[in-house]
Amino acid sequence: MGEIRKTMVKIGGRDYMMRGFESEEYIHKVAIFVDKKMAEISKCQPNLSTSMIMVLTAINLADEVIKLKAQTETLEQQVSEMKSVISKTAAPTLVDSRKMRTGK
Amino acid sequence: MGEIRKTMVKIGGRDYMMRGFESEEYIHKVAIFVDKKMAEISKCQPNLSTSMIMVLTAINLADEVIKLKAQTETLEQQVSEMKSVISKTAAPTLVDSRKMRTGK
Repeated sequence: MGEIRKTMVKIGGRDYMMRGFESEEYIHKVAIFVDKKMAEISKCQPNLSTSMIMVLTAINLADEVIKLKAQTETLEQQVSEMKSVISKTAAPTLVDSRKMRTGK
Repeated sequence: MGEIRKTMVKIGGRDYMMRGFESEEYIHKVAIFVDKKMAEISKCQPNLSTSMIMVLTAINLADEVIKLKAQTETLEQQVSEMKSVISKTAAPTLVDSRKMRTGK
């Protein structure tokens, strides 16, 4: 673990001091991501309060996290199954080749 | 697309009316997820205001989204490469078997 860095970011027009182990560049990237999500919600529903926009932003991000986690699990399962297919296709091929060479 | 559903959820001790196409069960799942994240942050930093906790919750969720997206991309790339390996191992095996059968 590196040292804790302090980074000032702007989210929803307000400045926030962030503390974390991530690089300053990455913390800005995350802040910009949140800010864009807030702007999208605010554009669709211009009468909402800042706190309501922030709640909806968190809700939308949590929805993305849940769906991405499910997608990641499916892909990991797929990778695992394909690894098994690759190892199985490699093994019987060797056995079959030997059978053919010995004429059995 | 189905009809827009209204669901009342509790996040950070406050009630919010959510509107969306997702099932009521799923909206509750997402709200509980956000609520738990807020509680974790609040436990670690008990002196923060509700709005600051909400900003940090959004920041943490955005961090998860960015990392999960990168993980998904890596896994998709892996699946694509493995598909290519499977199709390549299947094809030469057929050719080799034919060669062996004809004695060439």
